[in-house]
Amino acid sequence: MSEVRQKAELAGRVTSVLSSLSTEQKNAALLVAAQALINASDDIIEANKEDLQRGRENGTSESLLDRLALNKGRIEGIAEGLKQIVELPDPIGETLETIDRPNGLHIVKRRVPLGVIGIVYEARPNVTVDAIGLCLKTGNAVVLRGGSSALSSNRKIVEIIHEALKGTAVPRDAVQLIEDPNRSSVDEMLKLNGLLDVVIPRGGSSLIQNVVQNATVPVIETGAGICHTYLDASATPEMATAISINAKVQRPSVCNAMETLLVHEDYATAHLSDLAEVFKEAGVELRGDDKTRSIVNWASEATDEDYATEYNDYILNVKIVSNLDEALSHIRQFSTKHSECIVTEDRENALRFQQEVDAAAVYHNVSTRFTDGFEFGFGAEIGISTQKLHARGPMGLPALTSSKYIIDGNGQIRE
Amino acid sequence: MSEVRQKAELAGRVTSVLSSLSTEQKNAALLVAAQALINASDDIIEANKEDLQRGRENGTSESLLDRLALNKGRIEGIAEGLKQIVELPDPIGETLETIDRPNGLHIVKRRVPLGVIGIVYEARPNVTVDAIGLCLKTGNAVVLRGGSSALSSNRKIVEIIHEALKGTAVPRDAVQLIEDPNRSSVDEMLKLNGLLDVVIPRGGSSLIQNVVQNATVPVIETGAGICHTYLDASATPEMATAISINAKVQRPSVCNAMETLLVHEDYATAHLSDLAEVFKEAGVELRGDDKTRSIVNWASEATDEDYATEYNDYILNVKIVSNLDEALSHIRQFSTKHSECIVTEDRENALRFQQEVDAAAVYHNVSTRFTDGFEFGFGAEIGISTQKLHARGPMGLPALTSSKYIIDGNGQIRE
Repeated sequence: MSEVRQKAELAGRVTSVLSSLSTEQKNAALLVAAQALINASDDIIEANKEDLQRGRENGTSESLLDRLALNKGRIEGIAEGLKQIVELPDPIGETLETIDRPNGLHIVKRRVPLGVIGIVYEARPNVTVDAIGLCLKTGNAVVLRGGSSALSSNRKIVEIIHEALKGTAVPRDAVQLIEDPNRSSVDEMLKLNGLLDVVIPRGGSSLIQNVVQNATVPVIETGAGICHTYLDASATPEMATAISINAKVQRPSVCNAMETLLVHEDYATAHLSDLAEVFKEAGVELRGDDKTRSIVNWASEATDEDYATEYNDYILNVKIVSNLDEALSHIRQFSTKHSECIVTEDRENALRFQQEVDAAAVYHNVSTRFTDGFEFGFGAEIGISTQKLHARGPMGLPALTSSKYIIDGNGQIRE
Repeated sequence: MSEVRQKAELAGRVTSVLSSLSTEQKNAALLVAAQALINASDDIIEANKEDLQRGRENGTSESLLDRLALNKGRIEGIAEGLKQIVELPDPIGETLETIDRPNGLHIVKRRVPLGVIGIVYEARPNVTVDAIGLCLKTGNAVVLRGGSSALSSNRKIVEIIHEALKGTAVPRDAVQLIEDPNRSSVDEMLKLNGLLDVVIPRGGSSLIQNVVQNATVPVIETGAGICHTYLDASATPEMATAISINAKVQRPSVCNAMETLLVHEDYATAHLSDLAEVFKEAGVELRGDDKTRSIVNWASEATDEDYATEYNDYILNVKIVSNLDEALSHIRQFSTKHSECIVTEDRENALRFQQEVDAAAVYHNVSTRFTDGFEFGFGAEIGISTQKLHARGPMGLPALTSSKYIIDGNGQIRE
């Protein structure tokens, strides 16, 4: 039997135990795991060095090496993340609905774990611990398939957590790490219907697309964000500048950062030239349509391909539109339905934008950078769903749950 | 452009209008459509005759022809179904959550339509109207791909509904029928990421498996039901007989009918012989394990393949177990996680069964036949979900919705 199938089966065998654990039991296990990670910092850093060494040999970029690197401070941060998950309310067991039928049936819809969750992700070892914490807190088993570049770190982290779980009510088999570095192990996970209840990809768009295109297991699509900010005619220049700069440069590498700025022609005539200078000072390359380039002559030309690109970088498309309709139409064509924003003092335009734009989060006078579990008050998130099924937007603990109907009667039969 | 892509794009162009319709506008359109179907009964029956004629020429079985056949009474029933959907509460626009953040962000999670829903189904033309009613009521566009055996009927029904919608606020393009009878049109639908937000299969297990195995679009898996009833040692014989007979024979062809009866050995010693006679009189063929066959000598042998088969017929597996654990273990191995039942007077065993069995509906002293939208009080359903993501169990109107976060602020930017 392959490693993937074997580990998924082991995970499946403990779902029943996991689903009946109390909140206290789960929290106690997470705290033990957090402490164990801190205690074993030196071992983790040692294992991490192997990954970094291999990465350097393979010519991995410095920025990727930085994301991969662990030190005492980062490990403390990771452990702190587990402690924060302990503080979150446990959704399992919650009564979602109670129905009493005329025939005496008593129906309760109760929140239950999903079962076994597969996570496919890339380099950063903090995702390993995050995913374990979120899955265990919700009574799920987890099958992790991290990037091969972090394999030594991940193996050590999981080894420590396995050891820590021994003294707790959480069975060790609830956490499984796929060590096979070949892509075929991912492909196999994606087809494990009946063993995995869901696969969640975390990473860049090629990883996500591979999962979406090849999985027969249900998937929660996350991440890709071509986010727009539309500056309406009535936008306040100070607010418009602050929001659009923040949306682009506060952290360009993330999915809720802005990729295209749409500007009403009246606003553009009055303020685009100044705004472009602010972007220039912030080191942002601008690509624009013809109208934009007639105002910002140093901008290069924006093509449809540019409008369809998630740069995650200091590059921004700028397009001048004649009205709200044209802005909505552009967004409809290019949005990945993640986060969209209108800056306006016109209440009706704001309402229309929020009604018509089809996205997980639609903002009025707020930077798109707020689409985030912590910013919404949910705490740690397993990702940001850009699909419409099951969960949409930042996925807190309830996104890792399902429900079941529990029905009591006294001999009811169907006529 | 292919028919499938063209029609999905047409549907996608009206989602914005659909999402902003009032409940009154949607209900008015459904009532007009219902009346139009009744008024055009003769035309529908005429078109249906073509399907029946073609079916007879192709050697379709009488039972399938019966499911395909329409007459005035059935058309009235179908129209009545639309009127019942009008009576259901409209979930769209519902506020699901309100969050006020310390930084002044006001976040509202609002229920919205999914967008464009693909339905892949088999012969019965009533599904065409049901699906249209449920999707329009929830502000969704629908792309229908019915079985080719009902194509003339479906074409006529959709033609009438298109005509009826002209005088309403619901755009005609909200309803699309794929007429291409080749399997390739289904395959194409299953890959329409970005155009279809979900595909829901309705039909037999081969249709469902084809969808699950080939779709890259999100799927809600429905239907397959290998349902068990476990008669515990303390079960009341009268209730146990009534429930198990009802679960098997009241309508054997449906997904919530029982396929395997598990019997505690003490109950079996005292009552299985009598119970088997009742099944015999009802025309049910029994297949049993060795212990069962030592009590019911006319039962044939049940294999693991039998335990894994959804008969949808007058055939039942019977297995004697030594205790609740063995029953739970059998269910874990063979259940499709649809509907499972324990008959017992032992409250603790009931609770444990309901806690540990992983299924959409878990019954105590009630026939599994109740897993149904109407029986749960939801009204018409688009199917019964056997997956854990998004919706589980009977899917009423809320299962056809998503949510979006609408965020208002006054210039907040992320630090």
